[in-house]
Amino acid sequence: MDVVEFRPRPEQYAWTFGGAAPTHRIKPGTALRLWTEDAFSGRLQRTSDLPSQVLDMTEVNPQTGPFFVEGAEPGDTLAVHIAELTPARDWAASSTIPFFGALTGTDRTALLQQPLPEQTWIYQLDRAAGTVLFEAQRSTLRLELPLAPMLGTIGVAPAGREVRTSLVPDKFGGNMDTPEMRAGTTCYLGVNVEGALFSVGDGHYRQGEGESCGTAVEGAMDVTLVVDLIKGGAPEWPRLEHDEDYCVVGSSRPLEDAWRASQVGMVGWLGELYGLDPLDAYQLLTQISRSPLANVVDTNYSAVTRVEKALLPAADAYEGVHRRLSELARTI
Amino acid sequence: MDVVEFRPRPEQYAWTFGGAAPTHRIKPGTALRLWTEDAFSGRLQRTSDLPSQVLDMTEVNPQTGPFFVEGAEPGDTLAVHIAELTPARDWAASSTIPFFGALTGTDRTALLQQPLPEQTWIYQLDRAAGTVLFEAQRSTLRLELPLAPMLGTIGVAPAGREVRTSLVPDKFGGNMDTPEMRAGTTCYLGVNVEGALFSVGDGHYRQGEGESCGTAVEGAMDVTLVVDLIKGGAPEWPRLEHDEDYCVVGSSRPLEDAWRASQVGMVGWLGELYGLDPLDAYQLLTQISRSPLANVVDTNYSAVTRVEKALLPAADAYEGVHRRLSELARTI
Amino acid sequence: MDVVEFRPRPEQYAWTFGGAAPTHRIKPGTALRLWTEDAFSGRLQRTSDLPSQVLDMTEVNPQTGPFFVEGAEPGDTLAVHIAELTPARDWAASSTIPFFGALTGTDRTALLQQPLPEQTWIYQLDRAAGTVLFEAQRSTLRLELPLAPMLGTIGVAPAGREVRTSLVPDKFGGNMDTPEMRAGTTCYLGVNVEGALFSVGDGHYRQGEGESCGTAVEGAMDVTLVVDLIKGGAPEWPRLEHDEDYCVVGSSRPLEDAWRASQVGMVGWLGELYGLDPLDAYQLLTQISRSPLANVVDTNYSAVTRVEKALLPAADAYEGVHRRLSELARTI
Amino acid sequence: MDVVEFRPRPEQYAWTFGGAAPTHRIKPGTALRLWTEDAFSGRLQRTSDLPSQVLDMTEVNPQTGPFFVEGAEPGDTLAVHIAELTPARDWAASSTIPFFGALTGTDRTALLQQPLPEQTWIYQLDRAAGTVLFEAQRSTLRLELPLAPMLGTIGVAPAGREVRTSLVPDKFGGNMDTPEMRAGTTCYLGVNVEGALFSVGDGHYRQGEGESCGTAVEGAMDVTLVVDLIKGGAPEWPRLEHDEDYCVVGSSRPLEDAWRASQVGMVGWLGELYGLDPLDAYQLLTQISRSPLANVVDTNYSAVTRVEKALLPAADAYEGVHRRLSELARTI
Repeated sequence: MDVVEFRPRPEQYAWTFGGAAPTHRIKPGTALRLWTEDAFSGRLQRTSDLPSQVLDMTEVNPQTGPFFVEGAEPGDTLAVHIAELTPARDWAASSTIPFFGALTGTDRTALLQQPLPEQTWIYQLDRAAGTVLFEAQRSTLRLELPLAPMLGTIGVAPAGREVRTSLVPDKFGGNMDTPEMRAGTTCYLGVNVEGALFSVGDGHYRQGEGESCGTAVEGAMDVTLVVDLIKGGAPEWPRLEHDEDYCVVGSSRPLEDAWRASQVGMVGWLGELYGLDPLDAYQLLTQISRSPLANVVDTNYSAVTRVEKALLPAADAYEGVHRRLSELARTI
Repeated sequence: MDVVEFRPRPEQYAWTFGGAAPTHRIKPGTALRLWTEDAFSGRLQRTSDLPSQVLDMTEVNPQTGPFFVEGAEPGDTLAVHIAELTPARDWAASSTIPFFGALTGTDRTALLQQPLPEQTWIYQLDRAAGTVLFEAQRSTLRLELPLAPMLGTIGVAPAGREVRTSLVPDKFGGNMDTPEMRAGTTCYLGVNVEGALFSVGDGHYRQGEGESCGTAVEGAMDVTLVVDLIKGGAPEWPRLEHDEDYCVVGSSRPLEDAWRASQVGMVGWLGELYGLDPLDAYQLLTQISRSPLANVVDTNYSAVTRVEKALLPAADAYEGVHRRLSELARTI
Repeated sequence: MDVVEFRPRPEQYAWTFGGAAPTHRIKPGTALRLWTEDAFSGRLQRTSDLPSQVLDMTEVNPQTGPFFVEGAEPGDTLAVHIAELTPARDWAASSTIPFFGALTGTDRTALLQQPLPEQTWIYQLDRAAGTVLFEAQRSTLRLELPLAPMLGTIGVAPAGREVRTSLVPDKFGGNMDTPEMRAGTTCYLGVNVEGALFSVGDGHYRQGEGESCGTAVEGAMDVTLVVDLIKGGAPEWPRLEHDEDYCVVGSSRPLEDAWRASQVGMVGWLGELYGLDPLDAYQLLTQISRSPLANVVDTNYSAVTRVEKALLPAADAYEGVHRRLSELARTI
Repeated sequence: MDVVEFRPRPEQYAWTFGGAAPTHRIKPGTALRLWTEDAFSGRLQRTSDLPSQVLDMTEVNPQTGPFFVEGAEPGDTLAVHIAELTPARDWAASSTIPFFGALTGTDRTALLQQPLPEQTWIYQLDRAAGTVLFEAQRSTLRLELPLAPMLGTIGVAPAGREVRTSLVPDKFGGNMDTPEMRAGTTCYLGVNVEGALFSVGDGHYRQGEGESCGTAVEGAMDVTLVVDLIKGGAPEWPRLEHDEDYCVVGSSRPLEDAWRASQVGMVGWLGELYGLDPLDAYQLLTQISRSPLANVVDTNYSAVTRVEKALLPAADAYEGVHRRLSELARTI
């Protein structure tokens, strides 16, 4: 197995999906050992660092990549398996940002109220315990929370000649910010341009569903991926597979539309897996769907439909790619 | 402990929250052994029964109650603990209903497309195995699914002199349709009128998050409750407590607003429990929230914010009512 | 023509649609000379009166009525023609109310920001000039604005046994807050209960489309109506007719759903008037619709679809009721 | 005055905002005589032409431009005055497109219903009468409708390194589809990149507010513009000025957010023009706003806030640019 290692220098970061020249060309079957900078570009380091003072909003959510996958053509399906996610620093940061987040007016939910106060929280990592430490800044609680590393952002170049900021999720993936994107996940993305041009970033040491204040426990991440290519079969919306379940991620506004997209996506996937008529799939999904929100803060919101494999007959999605990549991942 | 048993006759059903005369007056601390008819009023019995032919849409979602709780005054908090939920029949029904459901145009998401086909699914119960049987009607899958009984509807009389159909969820509770409403749940509802006037109904033998097609595995239910009253402290939105977690349920449209209500409700609850400043609670919630959808089909959508007690310091919500009611429940 | 005059005393106000005993029984063809109190129940009288201090939120938006219309049965269409609207006072009030309005977080768009400041504006009327005077409170502009009297609220008792606050608009009409509801308007409402039980209130001396801050130029109003009954033909959503145009008002959330309801309603009305196939009506409406918003502040938002008669062939909606009532109105 | 004439060949069309090389460099003060192809790229020519058969969805909504405006820098304000819009053909087309439009499920309002039928309407122009002829295809109405030419699309290169399809409206303008964009309009757009890189397209011979079915009376257009540059002052959302009024266009989802953006934008503009405190501007706007919808069909919906100059004191927005460009326009 080819293994590519890459730790981008700041001038090598990508800030968009599409529109950035590939840093590498890789063959399907390649493993990638990557480093990703945090979504603040590493600029939020202590609780006295306020976003409005230290951030450059044109340089947030840096991506590692993009990678040109040889043979990938529009209509194909890129399979990216997350073999391992390891915090690359011993601390991480989170912050309220003026007019950004779910529980504040924003540039789009445009209101006349004053912004919430800017506040930064720094989380110290305890690798032995597998925890990060929440320390209240305006009251007194200290709380060790379990590490639960995930990637906020993974995506390919968009369709329709578009170039999209790394801050937005859509059909091409992008900044979906779902805790389902963890080690052990295989992410299936429809290819829109030759070479797929995928990139990753936005490591979170943990995140709740919805990412309420807009920023998770944001930290640099060591990321190990195995990449494969499936000819044809491009899903309209990103699909995820774990050992335990299938997920579809929809991203739009209002939130019900993001969720509807994920539901219709899952009706389709259940149809592919089990030959189910759409109405039967709709009925079955009604009784078994898990519907954990991903983010309610980005320009598109993201919602997940998840179904447990244990409830379903055995099946081999994409001819068992997930199982094969999981096995490969153990050999890196 | 007083124990009241009640199996309403059809003419005793309530169809609204508010506006119905109480069937019983009970003291705080009373246990209730109730029977609830299914949301179809028992009229959907075989796969050939189509909603447009057999349902009377003015008689759907019958409620058992309301119960007048002595001493309950506006501003108080009603605590209803679900001790036990047992399917009262050996079958249950689900159905698509024209222009109702999440993946179809409706009377409010008003579109010009033809309705989806009407289709009814009947689920047979296997009590020994603890399962219900899904049988595809337009394709071939048969699947045993675990029983997971829950109550779709629990609520009190609304504020503002209103009388609301049992089909809608709102601040008064009502048709929230969340799988979190299961045996072991204590539901806290703000009291709006003297006596609280709460009722329950809409048993589901199981339901996915979102209740996509609009109807769960709908079945008559034997329901055992223990009821208590907390003076003052009325929450704006319904709160739930399990042994394992706290939940707040928001109900509105669009879906982001339902979820925002549940999030702000949880920011408030965390503040009450731990003396957390709202901004600290917002930050903590960002990293620990579970956000499972409840329903995306009713006139208001319902979304849940859930936090696990295991992540938090020990606390006694409402001075330990949940624990006390759980213990009482075991003695009935 | 029967003419009924009624100036309710405060204890006679209705606060809901449905659930209030009729103040009068009238025959179709009756004229009503009514007085309506303003939405603040007259409690906001000077700029130093702040809503949080002087309002009783359980007594806002008082209604005059309800009127029991003899012969009205569910499925019928009530036609209420507004013959005249005359400001009943020489001043009117508007105010920001904490967590209410379109450009602030609310109880449903639940956010963590501080409320906007409370501020009250008093408008003096110049009857000769036909204007009200806007006086900025925190800056210096003074501006005479043309009087444009309208009724914020007109509705019948709801379906489904419901009783709804006078603050909400829905299929039964209610607090639609559209400037289209002015002298010369015939409002068609589907009857849900015997007698229809309609009431009116919430006079505005003028209002912009959307009613941004949540309160218009609110003032007591002298209201002259002529009421008629059309057997059958109940529209799903309120319809309005002027000499110049037809309107349908949809009320829901999100705002696109309110508007979709009004559009589908107009597709239906154009079909009734001209025998148009729905797809042809959709196409025609695409090219001629006016879409002025009504309110984006109430529990349901209201949107209007309006089409100009001048663009269309001559037609007699409801067999010319509007023309007949307009003529009758001139004879009162 | 420099006058540039340009009729692009098909291989010169731009399909995006941003990402396309400029076809011309122009100085502020230049007049442009342009031709724009229709949104169907001219491929829908008779009622038997169905979108699914004749359209290439990667080549819809072609733009004429982009134009590099010398001296334009990020933060500046581009003023584009529409001097004249003349239909360039004697016919125009409109069509339903599967899963596109306001009254159907779409890729984002993802539902399981069958699509609406595809249907194409061709409108014949009567230049002498100033009308287009609507001919029902599935029923019998024929109706002459007044010509009301407008531009669906005008925009600059987006911020944040993005390249956006010409089908979407956002802060950079784009496919706003508002009937307010007619001859006599000055459109103010914030500049995001050096040279501004603006383009225009999507001529409509007329369109209702909301563009319900998704396509207006689409036709090739002769477009005369005068372009100017204002240093600084970039508005967050596009502003329009007519002789009679000021408008702000917001574009987002859900529709209330699009409208909120336009309202907050107008609160700001009123503040700039009259020194009004935001709360006073909010109050004034509440009483005078016109709120005509633009489109409820694109990936972002667009809503307009409009205020009539006749209601306001005299003012010179941007030091009278609109008046100056209007005068220049008469001299071309």
